[in-house]
Amino acid sequence: MIVPIKYENEQLLIIDQTRLPLETVWLTLETKESVWEAIRLLQVRGAPAIGVAAGFGAYISVRDSKAEDSATFLSELKDVCEYLNSSRPTAVNLSWALKRMLAVGEANKDKSPAEIKAILREEAIAIRAEDEASCKSLGEYGLSLLKPGMGLLTHCNAGALATARYGTALSPMILGQERGYNFKVFADETRPLLQGARLTAWELFHAGVDVTLICDNMASIVMKNGWVDAVLVGCDRMAANGDGANKIGTSGVAILAKEYGIPFYMFVPSSTIDLNTPTGKDIPIEQRDSSEITSLWYKKDMAPIGVKTYNPAFDVTDAKYITAVVTEKGIAYPPYTESLPALLAK
Amino acid sequence: MIVPIKYENEQLLIIDQTRLPLETVWLTLETKESVWEAIRLLQVRGAPAIGVAAGFGAYISVRDSKAEDSATFLSELKDVCEYLNSSRPTAVNLSWALKRMLAVGEANKDKSPAEIKAILREEAIAIRAEDEASCKSLGEYGLSLLKPGMGLLTHCNAGALATARYGTALSPMILGQERGYNFKVFADETRPLLQGARLTAWELFHAGVDVTLICDNMASIVMKNGWVDAVLVGCDRMAANGDGANKIGTSGVAILAKEYGIPFYMFVPSSTIDLNTPTGKDIPIEQRDSSEITSLWYKKDMAPIGVKTYNPAFDVTDAKYITAVVTEKGIAYPPYTESLPALLAK
Repeated sequence: MIVPIKYENEQLLIIDQTRLPLETVWLTLETKESVWEAIRLLQVRGAPAIGVAAGFGAYISVRDSKAEDSATFLSELKDVCEYLNSSRPTAVNLSWALKRMLAVGEANKDKSPAEIKAILREEAIAIRAEDEASCKSLGEYGLSLLKPGMGLLTHCNAGALATARYGTALSPMILGQERGYNFKVFADETRPLLQGARLTAWELFHAGVDVTLICDNMASIVMKNGWVDAVLVGCDRMAANGDGANKIGTSGVAILAKEYGIPFYMFVPSSTIDLNTPTGKDIPIEQRDSSEITSLWYKKDMAPIGVKTYNPAFDVTDAKYITAVVTEKGIAYPPYTESLPALLAK
Repeated sequence: MIVPIKYENEQLLIIDQTRLPLETVWLTLETKESVWEAIRLLQVRGAPAIGVAAGFGAYISVRDSKAEDSATFLSELKDVCEYLNSSRPTAVNLSWALKRMLAVGEANKDKSPAEIKAILREEAIAIRAEDEASCKSLGEYGLSLLKPGMGLLTHCNAGALATARYGTALSPMILGQERGYNFKVFADETRPLLQGARLTAWELFHAGVDVTLICDNMASIVMKNGWVDAVLVGCDRMAANGDGANKIGTSGVAILAKEYGIPFYMFVPSSTIDLNTPTGKDIPIEQRDSSEITSLWYKKDMAPIGVKTYNPAFDVTDAKYITAVVTEKGIAYPPYTESLPALLAK
């Protein structure tokens, strides 16, 4: 069972996901700069996993603080949270986890720095434990929508590597595998960073799931061939109206699913739902470097030197294309403006 | 101006398109095996260019024949044509050009082998000249559908490199550039062989066209952003009902275009229309090697060793998604079962 973020012997360890699938390298993160960089460089990625890493990251960044009073200590914590929050813009779990760490610190401002440190440590551990439980629940709810033998398609990586454990969209696939569902899964390779090829195919392959790797542009023919009964994807931020930002290309997969009459399910832990973001238009979309398209991974440049690129890391899938939103608290159906707040209030 | 296939000093020369964009290497093809391999390995690719290469290929494969009578010579020609026709299955231009070479040979069976050789040489030159003229005409008809300043999107490479000269879907872009149309073109990189990044971006960039390279899965967001006024693509074989096979991913782009209300134009020289193929279901789709997805181009494998892949080289875009078919004889609109035969009869 894959666990991408460990806290052992008071050390924060992450699998360097940029080195997968051929090398499994663990990084020890000891400073706020190393946590910022690990998130920025996608050594740890996936909205829930970013939240878990940010929780531990905030704690390890202040645990050696020399502050003697809680006001000074909390001011340091606030600076750390603001700094870590600048590492990536789209996934709301990052700011969600950091706000939670800061809030629990401030709620205990009457205690000593040493006491607050201990509370922050417990809070980071709690965030991870809750994410694990949440992913397990997502798997159960997801499985309730599926039948044995189904063909499934997924985009990017919403697996264990993207979470504390189990994954979001991959959770029902893993759970189904344990229960003999024999799903046939198509994994989009997910350019430019190949999370589908490097991470999803790797996770599913090693879990014994029948997985077939395809290029992103093959989703249409695979659906047309009648091989896909449901599309399962993760989410980096869902707005109040049900618009969901996820890895670039997700919106295209959703439109294809609609055209071919295939249900499209988005797996969204409640920490990823942001009712303060009214619609998808209000979600900031991270733009990344041109070299990811033209030269990263390659033996040589694969495009003319100097050519322009456009490299958004995410796109927004409009709520109208999302058949259902699977959360750890249950399944929401349209209209999402009503069903999402109702679920969150549970 | 790019000319990917030359016949100079009685030598057949092609640009090795697998080496672009960083190296321009010319290959001399002297045997039928080298022509077969050049087509198979995509050193020469693009439906019209394959037809041109096959025409010259058939000629150079028999020009040194020692046959003393025309029956023996024509039997050799027939074997050569059958052999070359086995190099790739989908583009109909391959069999079209080879049938044409064989037919002109057989029509002159009363002549000597030496005389038939001279006729075959002229026929190969004629195929190329006709393709050049056809591409120019495609450009003019294409331009009649477009307005200055438009945003365009294309998939794979339907440029000069895919033809004798000018290109099919890229022909109006090049022509428009000369006439100050200032198109803004988005080029899908086109996995797994990256013809968009390596060939289309290279052609347009060097022609001074404002081109932006994107990953295939970014077509949806680019359309949603309102940056695309028309989609222009080539075709490898169009069936009698207007279903068109083209590079894998084209059908997905067509569905996105429909969803976003963007016209989708397929550029189809009449040699690519096959009225003997009733529908898209009857077009054979070439399956290619797994390594193209998992390890080609890369510094190391980008997927778990042993994972399954599905790697079709083409998909079929249903006629219902094609706004118009641009040919060198004019523009066909639905219903294609009527408009295509009418155009071909011109």
